[in-house]
Amino acid sequence: MDTRRKAHFTMSAGPVEATERTLRALSQPVYYHYDPQFAEVFDDTLAKLKAVFQTQQDVIIMQGEALLGLEAAAACCFQEGDTVLNLVSGVYGAGYQYYIDLYGARSVEVRVPYNAAVDPEDVERALRAHPEVRFLTVVHSETPSGTLNPVREICTIAKRHGVLTIVDAVSSMGTLDIRPDEWGFDICVVGPQKAFAAPPGLALISVSDAAWQVMRGRRKPVRYSYLSMLDWKEQWLEQRHFPYTVFTSDVVALREALAQVLEEGLPQVFARHERSARACRAGVKALGLGLWPASEAIASPCCTALLPPQGVDEKALRARMYEEYGVLISGGVGDTAGKLVRIGHMGKMADPMYVAVALAALERSLFDLGHTVRFGSGVGAALAAL
Amino acid sequence: MDTRRKAHFTMSAGPVEATERTLRALSQPVYYHYDPQFAEVFDDTLAKLKAVFQTQQDVIIMQGEALLGLEAAAACCFQEGDTVLNLVSGVYGAGYQYYIDLYGARSVEVRVPYNAAVDPEDVERALRAHPEVRFLTVVHSETPSGTLNPVREICTIAKRHGVLTIVDAVSSMGTLDIRPDEWGFDICVVGPQKAFAAPPGLALISVSDAAWQVMRGRRKPVRYSYLSMLDWKEQWLEQRHFPYTVFTSDVVALREALAQVLEEGLPQVFARHERSARACRAGVKALGLGLWPASEAIASPCCTALLPPQGVDEKALRARMYEEYGVLISGGVGDTAGKLVRIGHMGKMADPMYVAVALAALERSLFDLGHTVRFGSGVGAALAAL
Amino acid sequence: MDTRRKAHFTMSAGPVEATERTLRALSQPVYYHYDPQFAEVFDDTLAKLKAVFQTQQDVIIMQGEALLGLEAAAACCFQEGDTVLNLVSGVYGAGYQYYIDLYGARSVEVRVPYNAAVDPEDVERALRAHPEVRFLTVVHSETPSGTLNPVREICTIAKRHGVLTIVDAVSSMGTLDIRPDEWGFDICVVGPQKAFAAPPGLALISVSDAAWQVMRGRRKPVRYSYLSMLDWKEQWLEQRHFPYTVFTSDVVALREALAQVLEEGLPQVFARHERSARACRAGVKALGLGLWPASEAIASPCCTALLPPQGVDEKALRARMYEEYGVLISGGVGDTAGKLVRIGHMGKMADPMYVAVALAALERSLFDLGHTVRFGSGVGAALAAL
Amino acid sequence: MDTRRKAHFTMSAGPVEATERTLRALSQPVYYHYDPQFAEVFDDTLAKLKAVFQTQQDVIIMQGEALLGLEAAAACCFQEGDTVLNLVSGVYGAGYQYYIDLYGARSVEVRVPYNAAVDPEDVERALRAHPEVRFLTVVHSETPSGTLNPVREICTIAKRHGVLTIVDAVSSMGTLDIRPDEWGFDICVVGPQKAFAAPPGLALISVSDAAWQVMRGRRKPVRYSYLSMLDWKEQWLEQRHFPYTVFTSDVVALREALAQVLEEGLPQVFARHERSARACRAGVKALGLGLWPASEAIASPCCTALLPPQGVDEKALRARMYEEYGVLISGGVGDTAGKLVRIGHMGKMADPMYVAVALAALERSLFDLGHTVRFGSGVGAALAAL
Repeated sequence: MDTRRKAHFTMSAGPVEATERTLRALSQPVYYHYDPQFAEVFDDTLAKLKAVFQTQQDVIIMQGEALLGLEAAAACCFQEGDTVLNLVSGVYGAGYQYYIDLYGARSVEVRVPYNAAVDPEDVERALRAHPEVRFLTVVHSETPSGTLNPVREICTIAKRHGVLTIVDAVSSMGTLDIRPDEWGFDICVVGPQKAFAAPPGLALISVSDAAWQVMRGRRKPVRYSYLSMLDWKEQWLEQRHFPYTVFTSDVVALREALAQVLEEGLPQVFARHERSARACRAGVKALGLGLWPASEAIASPCCTALLPPQGVDEKALRARMYEEYGVLISGGVGDTAGKLVRIGHMGKMADPMYVAVALAALERSLFDLGHTVRFGSGVGAALAAL
Repeated sequence: MDTRRKAHFTMSAGPVEATERTLRALSQPVYYHYDPQFAEVFDDTLAKLKAVFQTQQDVIIMQGEALLGLEAAAACCFQEGDTVLNLVSGVYGAGYQYYIDLYGARSVEVRVPYNAAVDPEDVERALRAHPEVRFLTVVHSETPSGTLNPVREICTIAKRHGVLTIVDAVSSMGTLDIRPDEWGFDICVVGPQKAFAAPPGLALISVSDAAWQVMRGRRKPVRYSYLSMLDWKEQWLEQRHFPYTVFTSDVVALREALAQVLEEGLPQVFARHERSARACRAGVKALGLGLWPASEAIASPCCTALLPPQGVDEKALRARMYEEYGVLISGGVGDTAGKLVRIGHMGKMADPMYVAVALAALERSLFDLGHTVRFGSGVGAALAAL
Repeated sequence: MDTRRKAHFTMSAGPVEATERTLRALSQPVYYHYDPQFAEVFDDTLAKLKAVFQTQQDVIIMQGEALLGLEAAAACCFQEGDTVLNLVSGVYGAGYQYYIDLYGARSVEVRVPYNAAVDPEDVERALRAHPEVRFLTVVHSETPSGTLNPVREICTIAKRHGVLTIVDAVSSMGTLDIRPDEWGFDICVVGPQKAFAAPPGLALISVSDAAWQVMRGRRKPVRYSYLSMLDWKEQWLEQRHFPYTVFTSDVVALREALAQVLEEGLPQVFARHERSARACRAGVKALGLGLWPASEAIASPCCTALLPPQGVDEKALRARMYEEYGVLISGGVGDTAGKLVRIGHMGKMADPMYVAVALAALERSLFDLGHTVRFGSGVGAALAAL
Repeated sequence: MDTRRKAHFTMSAGPVEATERTLRALSQPVYYHYDPQFAEVFDDTLAKLKAVFQTQQDVIIMQGEALLGLEAAAACCFQEGDTVLNLVSGVYGAGYQYYIDLYGARSVEVRVPYNAAVDPEDVERALRAHPEVRFLTVVHSETPSGTLNPVREICTIAKRHGVLTIVDAVSSMGTLDIRPDEWGFDICVVGPQKAFAAPPGLALISVSDAAWQVMRGRRKPVRYSYLSMLDWKEQWLEQRHFPYTVFTSDVVALREALAQVLEEGLPQVFARHERSARACRAGVKALGLGLWPASEAIASPCCTALLPPQGVDEKALRARMYEEYGVLISGGVGDTAGKLVRIGHMGKMADPMYVAVALAALERSLFDLGHTVRFGSGVGAALAAL
């Protein structure tokens, strides 16, 4: 598809642009998964993942989209009779209910509007009211809303109640400082195509010993299935045998992407994401546009969700930015579709200069669509906020 | 992992070496799956898949290993009370029993030794004896054995009995002329990392209308799950909405790999595979080594399974070929592990010159390990067989 | 050198950033120059060069930097007793005097300040005053000054006087509409690393029949030398034999870069360069900074030369932009070194969004270095100028 | 040019196939030559070159084909009145006479048939007979003949006579142990596209202090010219200023290629070349074909020149190997054209398995063209010779 690329700047909510270094790694000869050299690559990737996750727990790589990991958590943990406290502050939180039902558990819910964050006190209350709850599921960064939930406080409460936590950190891991072990994450699912800027195709998951025990202690543990986490624990980690063909090229690319994160340094990476998100919000506000999150305090560093001005269609806005200026941003998802647009600033794109590009294209496109804009006000505010 | 690569020639049973053209496609910037240009890429990939599959049926791409497709077929089709005729001529056929059990069906089995092929008459007999059978599952190329089952005859019989067929053509599609529509395949699962020489990571599946009807007619159709085929039919094919993030880079690479197959021409590609496999078997025999398949008539064009000579350990043989000559071949799998080695000749490696490399390394390695070899006899026989 | 790259945006005066498509072409397996397929590649590259040059003349590719082509023109054309009219409006024009001396000719000069353009009337006057002039040498885009000379008028005058013209269009070709044949260019030398955004390493040269006649008519034609243009005419164009090893990878990349230019369309490419240059100048002026060219009418579309404000060291400015914001721009060259900085906007970087990046980094870096800046004023003016 | 590649195995006399690691380096973003990071890359490349050359002398990289370096040596060193002893054992040695004439020197010649090597005693005799000789020029590996000259002995004699030596080690450096400093090389010119398996486009040159003195001591030293070596000494090495735009991408690729040589280890690299060349010659002889070199003792490790059997046209033979088996080898050059074919085994291709491929294709192609061949005899002999 070597036609002229329209998106020179992919500032989406993910997959985001990979660095050219990662792309070159991706283009290495495809490994046979039982090439002895690949075992070293795989082990090293797991080691790097642990370092980036800042965890001592087991880390596994399921060979599918991050969603596979989220569904697998439900499939491997829940069974008839279990009760799950599901926290809903957005599309993905709401969607998890489907897995709870599919895998036979009952659910209790704490729900807030899709532009808000869950209040840890509500979690405390819910757990007190429902001592039968065995699992808590929470989305850290609700990407469709550009909001963050206070997973540290939430999971700390859950652990105090002896509840196993399943955390969707798909888009948050790598954008800010997360401590799965200290904060009480039992299963934490992450996507490579977000802050790591690796190609999509893998589900990166840390699993606590407590979670393994739950999976093994089921009446009928899930094994020999694409949804099985245990296969990766028992076949690969314990017996050095892959359950099935590994996505060797994706693993090689992920490893290179993680190497770059570690070479830059986690604090530097987090600061870069914070700075870019801050600049982006400053620019949006200076343009007189509303942020979707109820407050900046809960705005996610992974993407900025904003409201197009009255009279400007969000589809037309994105189309203009894309067709005319080569800047690709995201719309909403599910319930947020049509209501907001999102500028992603993860991985390589978490860079004030890329934010400047997105804002410049936004400014000019708003103008092109008939909206009054003081040119430079958005980019200028972003520069001032650095 | 830019250390000196040891495997200069990966003649494995898959993943096999991709062409440099495919690798370059893989290194294109990672697409956001909702980049409008990616929709064109995806559609074109499906169109090319149909052309290579030689089918008019729907084709879907599940975002996981080929095994995901095989499990999904079971998960989406089978339900309590169904009876499945499972044909077993090797490790993969035998393994399917696990899915039959997992998804609640009962099974009837036709079983032959792992170096033999299923006899269509046995299938006819089994279907007559078991009119309750609703599904038949068969592996076309039993890669761990290097053997082929007569799927044309088998599926023709099945269709006469009104039985839905699920065909594992993971490693056979692209190596020889297959006609899913005429031969009566209802679900046909293929891997990109075999004859197409694309990176692993996708399950390529053709699905007949009858199969869709079965999936939709279940008491509880499988939807909104990583195992759902229907999601791809209903969300993508019908509503142009991806069920979840697509492995955009893998799709781009697959598309380029398929383009190369089509540019070369299917008849040419099949002939190349046949010629390479023939040359390989001629070389092996000339070296006085045994073929694992009971007869050459059932030998698979995807890989040649052969028996190391008495006194030569198969692991040591493979290690020698790899460490000293840079040639990576496969061992057995499951029940065939330790008994045989396999030279893959799929995709780019389906080339008499690569076969010559494998045989040259085999000759010299056998000698190095103390076995008497007339140097050149294997390669010479391969050349003579062209 | 896979350390963290500092220059995420190379907005230099060249080499500029290649597109990823061109980079992928560059990474194709290295051709043996006598691979029969390479002859096709080479011929097609020449054909594409003719199309992009908009010429019917011969085009050759010398295997060295553009400067090799400029020196070769002198070496192959000039001989003892010749008089050359050398037009000097900048560093490169002035430098050509060296070749005139080295290759034994005498010179007449028209000289203007380095921020001005040569006046065609002065050329007319000089040619009238010096009927012995056989050659005229002129630089179209004086990259170190960011200025353009009116080569159309100049060469038209020269041809009227029967003078052979040698045009340095190294950085101008591809940025604006040039007609070598109609305008009277006899030898026109172009660099691939400028508007075509190909890797450096080749000298792209169109040669008129009159020029070939001059080279062949010398007392001692230059043949069998790295400086010989005739070798390419006589050995390659006439006898299909390469004078020496061709830079096969560079040619493959150039071909792909030219393909992209032609696919986009020459008028579109020129308009994109004009628009980007215009936006850049608007931004610079809005920031209160001076342009180096005496008037915008002679500003080159290839790069914008600007004056840092009083009290801001140009080296410190460039260093800040590079180290802190990842934006690499150029300083001056020779006599312009230390006096100005240059923002390149050629090839892929001739894009208003890249210009916005350069201006954003410029704004913020000026501020960081203590200069008062109204943030957004530069970028805003650029957006308004689109 | 993404048509189906015909040459899957380029076993030419150079450019040879680059490793995929080198190709990936080549596809890194094109550096602006004054990107501060590029200075590090360039310095490191020079350091690696010194290590691979095993020299303490200055090393420079001229931005052109190796031939540029050879011509530059003549242009920079020779002047009217100088006498050069030119050793001729093949096409390249004979061709050097042209530069001697072009740059105004007189010559004395020692000449042997093109399948022989120069006898050091003849050199001794010539130098005694011609005390006016100031320079000696010799080709180490006469690639068109596949022969080696005893440069160690020759240059040692020359130094005893106070003669400056210019050594064409274009294709030999990296294939066997060479010691420029101990052996008395004053100027040694090497090509990146041979044993280093880097892309063509650069001339790699070591220069002794004595040679610099000669260049500087001329009546009119060559400066500010594409043929100037002094520019690289005085502008880059001494003042850190590039004489002109550097082929940044080629340098990056060369650096990566050299890194691979050094990681493997020079002794290992030399042994691999020796072993591959030995195997190739054994295979050729076993097929009953003649070697072009008068004795194996003077056969070059860079390529094997062989005589097609009576009745087999060398062009038809190469065409058959290329078209039918994807193996590209070289014909002769100049006086050896039409008389011999050459199998290159340099760099990545210096691998017994690639030699086996070339021999297998040779065997089968000879057969296809009507020549009687015992299949496997060539490859077998090569395997036996390992």
